[in-house]
Amino acid sequence: MKLQPARYRLEVRVTPRAGLLDPPGKAIYQALHALGYVEVADVRVGKAIALEIDAASEEAARARAEEMCRKLLANPVTEDFEIVHSDNAPAAGDHR
Amino acid sequence: MKLQPARYRLEVRVTPRAGLLDPPGKAIYQALHALGYVEVADVRVGKAIALEIDAASEEAARARAEEMCRKLLANPVTEDFEIVHSDNAPAAGDHR
Repeated sequence: MKLQPARYRLEVRVTPRAGLLDPPGKAIYQALHALGYVEVADVRVGKAIALEIDAASEEAARARAEEMCRKLLANPVTEDFEIVHSDNAPAAGDHR
Repeated sequence: MKLQPARYRLEVRVTPRAGLLDPPGKAIYQALHALGYVEVADVRVGKAIALEIDAASEEAARARAEEMCRKLLANPVTEDFEIVHSDNAPAAGDHR
């Protein structure tokens, strides 16, 4: 018996590592203050990458997505990544 | 009596509107296929903007963040935005 693959929608969030400079975040911070949003204390800009992956299970899709992050999607020196959620089978416990 | 402001951490997700071209997404899609990840059916790239906002309540922080999205963070013609979650008071129901 072979598992029928299904399509999973995962979202990967890639963020600049804490402590590293984030020039786009700084630019947005300054623009928001210039517009009067002085209550903004910090802005960090990352990428939200939505992936649709054909896999036999959600676990398999997540494992492949993690590999893709390590190999291509995130810079291992400057960025952190997190697989935020999946549409087919909502993940519990990893929303921050 | 005046409400003491607290700091709220909200995350805004800005994504290219469905149907519009997404050149960074296409580039990542092609790179993943070149690396052998042929099970990837689609890639869309958006921004994940983490905001820290001082406000009297979570609702107030969200309302201000929505204004910021409309005025600066999202392009009203080509992008959609969504306020995904907050750290101080996790929001229910708007995780996709």
